Amino acid sequence: MLNQPQPLTRADGRAANELRPIRITRRFTTNPAGSVLVEFGNTRVMCTASVEEGVPRFKRDSGEGWLTAEYAMLPSATHERMPRESMRGKVKGRTHEISRLVGRALRAAVDLKQLGENTIAIDCDVLQADGGTRTAAITGAYVALADALSVLQQRGVVPGQPLLPPVAAVSVGVLNGTPVLDLPYEEDSRADVDMNVVMTEQGRFVEIQGTGEHAEFSREELNALLDLAEGGLRQIIDIQKAALAEDLE
Amino acid sequence: MLNQPQPLTRADGRAANELRPIRITRRFTTNPAGSVLVEFGNTRVMCTASVEEGVPRFKRDSGEGWLTAEYAMLPSATHERMPRESMRGKVKGRTHEISRLVGRALRAAVDLKQLGENTIAIDCDVLQADGGTRTAAITGAYVALADALSVLQQRGVVPGQPLLPPVAAVSVGVLNGTPVLDLPYEEDSRADVDMNVVMTEQGRFVEIQGTGEHAEFSREELNALLDLAEGGLRQIIDIQKAALAEDLE
Amino acid sequence: MLNQPQPLTRADGRAANELRPIRITRRFTTNPAGSVLVEFGNTRVMCTASVEEGVPRFKRDSGEGWLTAEYAMLPSATHERMPRESMRGKVKGRTHEISRLVGRALRAAVDLKQLGENTIAIDCDVLQADGGTRTAAITGAYVALADALSVLQQRGVVPGQPLLPPVAAVSVGVLNGTPVLDLPYEEDSRADVDMNVVMTEQGRFVEIQGTGEHAEFSREELNALLDLAEGGLRQIIDIQKAALAEDLE
Amino acid sequence: MLNQPQPLTRADGRAANELRPIRITRRFTTNPAGSVLVEFGNTRVMCTASVEEGVPRFKRDSGEGWLTAEYAMLPSATHERMPRESMRGKVKGRTHEISRLVGRALRAAVDLKQLGENTIAIDCDVLQADGGTRTAAITGAYVALADALSVLQQRGVVPGQPLLPPVAAVSVGVLNGTPVLDLPYEEDSRADVDMNVVMTEQGRFVEIQGTGEHAEFSREELNALLDLAEGGLRQIIDIQKAALAEDLE
Amino acid sequence: MLNQPQPLTRADGRAANELRPIRITRRFTTNPAGSVLVEFGNTRVMCTASVEEGVPRFKRDSGEGWLTAEYAMLPSATHERMPRESMRGKVKGRTHEISRLVGRALRAAVDLKQLGENTIAIDCDVLQADGGTRTAAITGAYVALADALSVLQQRGVVPGQPLLPPVAAVSVGVLNGTPVLDLPYEEDSRADVDMNVVMTEQGRFVEIQGTGEHAEFSREELNALLDLAEGGLRQIIDIQKAALAEDLE
Amino acid sequence: MLNQPQPLTRADGRAANELRPIRITRRFTTNPAGSVLVEFGNTRVMCTASVEEGVPRFKRDSGEGWLTAEYAMLPSATHERMPRESMRGKVKGRTHEISRLVGRALRAAVDLKQLGENTIAIDCDVLQADGGTRTAAITGAYVALADALSVLQQRGVVPGQPLLPPVAAVSVGVLNGTPVLDLPYEEDSRADVDMNVVMTEQGRFVEIQGTGEHAEFSREELNALLDLAEGGLRQIIDIQKAALAEDLE
Repeated sequence: MLNQPQPLTRADGRAANELRPIRITRRFTTNPAGSVLVEFGNTRVMCTASVEEGVPRFKRDSGEGWLTAEYAMLPSATHERMPRESMRGKVKGRTHEISRLVGRALRAAVDLKQLGENTIAIDCDVLQADGGTRTAAITGAYVALADALSVLQQRGVVPGQPLLPPVAAVSVGVLNGTPVLDLPYEEDSRADVDMNVVMTEQGRFVEIQGTGEHAEFSREELNALLDLAEGGLRQIIDIQKAALAEDLE
Repeated sequence: MLNQPQPLTRADGRAANELRPIRITRRFTTNPAGSVLVEFGNTRVMCTASVEEGVPRFKRDSGEGWLTAEYAMLPSATHERMPRESMRGKVKGRTHEISRLVGRALRAAVDLKQLGENTIAIDCDVLQADGGTRTAAITGAYVALADALSVLQQRGVVPGQPLLPPVAAVSVGVLNGTPVLDLPYEEDSRADVDMNVVMTEQGRFVEIQGTGEHAEFSREELNALLDLAEGGLRQIIDIQKAALAEDLE
Repeated sequence: MLNQPQPLTRADGRAANELRPIRITRRFTTNPAGSVLVEFGNTRVMCTASVEEGVPRFKRDSGEGWLTAEYAMLPSATHERMPRESMRGKVKGRTHEISRLVGRALRAAVDLKQLGENTIAIDCDVLQADGGTRTAAITGAYVALADALSVLQQRGVVPGQPLLPPVAAVSVGVLNGTPVLDLPYEEDSRADVDMNVVMTEQGRFVEIQGTGEHAEFSREELNALLDLAEGGLRQIIDIQKAALAEDLE
Repeated sequence: MLNQPQPLTRADGRAANELRPIRITRRFTTNPAGSVLVEFGNTRVMCTASVEEGVPRFKRDSGEGWLTAEYAMLPSATHERMPRESMRGKVKGRTHEISRLVGRALRAAVDLKQLGENTIAIDCDVLQADGGTRTAAITGAYVALADALSVLQQRGVVPGQPLLPPVAAVSVGVLNGTPVLDLPYEEDSRADVDMNVVMTEQGRFVEIQGTGEHAEFSREELNALLDLAEGGLRQIIDIQKAALAEDLE
Repeated sequence: MLNQPQPLTRADGRAANELRPIRITRRFTTNPAGSVLVEFGNTRVMCTASVEEGVPRFKRDSGEGWLTAEYAMLPSATHERMPRESMRGKVKGRTHEISRLVGRALRAAVDLKQLGENTIAIDCDVLQADGGTRTAAITGAYVALADALSVLQQRGVVPGQPLLPPVAAVSVGVLNGTPVLDLPYEEDSRADVDMNVVMTEQGRFVEIQGTGEHAEFSREELNALLDLAEGGLRQIIDIQKAALAEDLE
Repeated sequence: MLNQPQPLTRADGRAANELRPIRITRRFTTNPAGSVLVEFGNTRVMCTASVEEGVPRFKRDSGEGWLTAEYAMLPSATHERMPRESMRGKVKGRTHEISRLVGRALRAAVDLKQLGENTIAIDCDVLQADGGTRTAAITGAYVALADALSVLQQRGVVPGQPLLPPVAAVSVGVLNGTPVLDLPYEEDSRADVDMNVVMTEQGRFVEIQGTGEHAEFSREELNALLDLAEGGLRQIIDIQKAALAEDLE
């Protein structure tokens, strides 16, 4: 059961409905077609979009493209160093779960028919983790995807206009009974409810994942959390659009 | 974008808000402390709860217990046989994702402090898959958990009353623009939106996972889906309670 | 060296040459072409036969088909829960050994030339283990194979008559100096000698595997064990044939 | 069904009941406590016995020792080079199956109580394969085991007299209807029936594994094969004893 | 055999003995005790040094510490995206080889006795690859190590003064017969000889690895390459010292 | 820093610049096209060269061949038995590193254009390890390669003359301040500097790998080590040539 709401003071002084400072740096690296460093406060994720000719077997001869995504944390990204998954020989369930989420979210931002039989590989590598890494990853990956598709169109590889309007993500949670937006690690680890919301520019949901980690939540609380998320996502989408509007030449 | 709602006829003749026939068979096997066969229509999952002394390292000396869960499909459960994960040497991301969901859902049904330093291992093995395997798994696993905890209390192993009120799960989705309850595979594969809802007897949410696989969804559609899920879950919880009320001696 | 024979009382009251109750349930699940639940007392194994077009590389362009088999135990099948092989990332030697035995045994029941270039995949998943799981698996898999081949013939996929006469298996062992038939786990773990015999309806051996786990055995003891096995196998083959004679429509 | 017996001429000119030349070289290498090169014709296996203090968990505090065995083929041992199992990341089922057989066979040659809480690790690495590698491995490993136990006793590590009388192994098979002893690869690949027999000096069986690879076998054929094996094994045990009688100082 | 020396023009206009621009950014991330971004031209490597209490088994109760290192490339670091090693389930030989080199090189920069029973984990993750990633990694890792040891000393965890004078690395190679310093990818892939040199501030070698990939090299060529490397390394060590002299408060 | 040179007495009585007795046995086994047992004192390595039709993907349609190499130690090769890499499911970094070194070294001994689109697979399996296993492996593998290429030419499979002049390898090191040649394990484990040198008959270097494991080394020490290596390598190449000059018919 949720605790009673209490007057909330956030460690970083933010209001309950306030985002952390968000920065999006395009062309962070130069080898992939799209490469973005996205920062939500201290959370920093390198998001790239690479293009591979052809499609996986289940899409072959469909005339459509595909998009895959892999999310991972560098071993030194967290406060305590984590063993490297390649050396353990096993990928953790959490990593798989987030990779799949990122893939579903980004496929909502691309018209696979317009892509032709090409595959976009999204990589989201967390350089520094402070909560909300999966939502930062989705947010940054959209910008990397946009840059990559623009390169493809310039090269004449892509038949149509595959890029769809922005998709962004944010986390919300219930902390000491109060709904809050964009939780850093310190809040996330204490939150009773944890929710990630992926939304399009049109205000439609791509994905909602809410978990009562330490307490369940009512329909009213769900609504309060979604209101908070929608407000944050509108701001984040503006930041994505501003980043894409910059002229990098 | 969602298609326009159309008069819906479900292949199995059900109403949009109607569950498939649900059966819960306790003591399906006899080695684990709790063993249940749960059926949602043609979906059949064997759910067991085994007890292991001690707890994982991160819970050691906490005085609390722990609950883990593993979900898997038999290779012959699906229409086309799937390669066995043990032979591939890799567990699929989907399997990890569902195992983690089942674990979170069931931990909402047990008071870890009352459990003492014991671990409950939930296994959900799908014998036959026809959509909704993860929600059937959670629903059945609660009953297996209840039986296992009852065995533990009879043996005097568990200090307190660890079992919490029922937790159940159901799937909802949007099909041709119409929200429907408890989708079999044939509907699930065509649905625009797919949502799994885990709820307690008190009507509080443990987990909500909604995905716009083929189209995003609006706040109104979300609300319609949650209404449908809540209605179904109240019936499912009654079935769980009826199963547990049977005297098996 | 073997102990002196003593008047034997079996825990379940059976005579030394008496089988446990054997039940064969066809169409246990509906997705695979053949699906059987086989029970030898408390041992319960789900045996399925799935059909895949084409053959492995070493059989390509041979005009012949192939049959593979995989045996596995559900983690909750045994008295103490066993770690899941897919999660360990390694398949145990015992599992490999039994899968290979099942494959060899069942290949003696199918004329690969008459099968055409199709592959039969046998899966034997132990739901509950109480000794003799591999012999139950072989016995049940023959019935699943028969059903699958019958489906293939109805579909016109298979050129000839690939099904050969029944193949069945049973375990025998030496317990306190006395040869006994069809050992449950409690006897199996104490037996000095453990033998598995696979035989055709014509009384010819497909496979004999005898191991002196705790004591070696003489030629005379071997003969006594084989006599016992032959008697049991004739009964088991009758049960297989009765199961296949049932009209399921 | 077996072919009719025909006058048999073996490619290497041997009589049906004649062994290939067998050579046992002790102290083949010097690091392990026991190291033997065993040759059955062109089949050459390096068998070593290493001693490790302590026992696996399931034997801890039992006062008894343990013996494990691993069998493997060098990639260049066969006519066509085989991929190296360590590089494939998977051990083949055949390798597991033979390792387990060698372990069971050699445990019949050691009194684990007299060994104290020590573990013997047997390694059988096939340098050149020409049929009968598993039976050569068991035969050579007994000699390596004897040497290792003798070292242990000299060092005063082992409390008792753990070595039991010789255990040896040989293959027999049915070729064109005729039972033959000790099959090289060329015969083995054509044989209708293939059997491996492990026997003690007292003439008692440790293990019998007979497989009707291409045809089943009758009780009479089984008896003929066992007669042939027993004759060969008596000669092999003499060779083991002669090798151990040599004074290597 | 080496081609005849030709007047060399490097694509980036550098002289044969000229380094690429090198930048070292300390405190690149904040979770590890030491975190450095090192850039050799377009090659960018994130080098971190994390501290773990205790030492691996082989160092236990030695009173000494230990240092391990792991090198890896992000999948999008290269021109063509490379499959992620954690997803392949296998670490490539090249990765292992470089990780081991980095570990040996950095152990020459720390007095393990003065470190006490602590372990330093070096992670070098290549964000962008353009040749010389292993030498950049070693160069940057020294600075991260220095920062981490300084943190440890401030915390009073480390008994002594474990940091030794700088260790740096550079690549040299023979291109069209001419020895050149610090090769980018385009030159590296065409070079006849490829050499990596790790040196201390005192001008002593920690590691020399020279490979005649496309042609062997004479003693004279070796000497020319070492002269070139020494000149470059003196400059790099000055850059390391300048970076460490900056006051970051 | 290196210790002061002291009058050196080697445990086996050799002079500092003296090789251990080296023996090369051709046709050690008969299945691979080339098979050599090479001994450097107590170090014994079986080196084989097998031929496979076709080339890896990156060489396809190049008209050239390829050469790969795998190095491994038998578990009983070392003084203390080492776990078998295939059973651990992981290949150690050291094994990868040496396999890659052997491959690069042997590719310097074959003209890939003259080989046609064939692949040579070199396997170096250490039967007994006493220091210098990688250098013995390279030395023996050259002879196995020569035999395999000669077989290929006799069969008319290879278009040209792919064998290049001998390539051999030896280790040198600094022990108590004195440079020594060809170190056995006991010296290797104590050496301050460890260097492996691969050289052609023409006196050109294929690979130099020098590591200051316990102390760095100066340019003068490097030169002394290379002088020592060159002297040893000239003798080793004579031994290779003498072995190849023997008439084995």
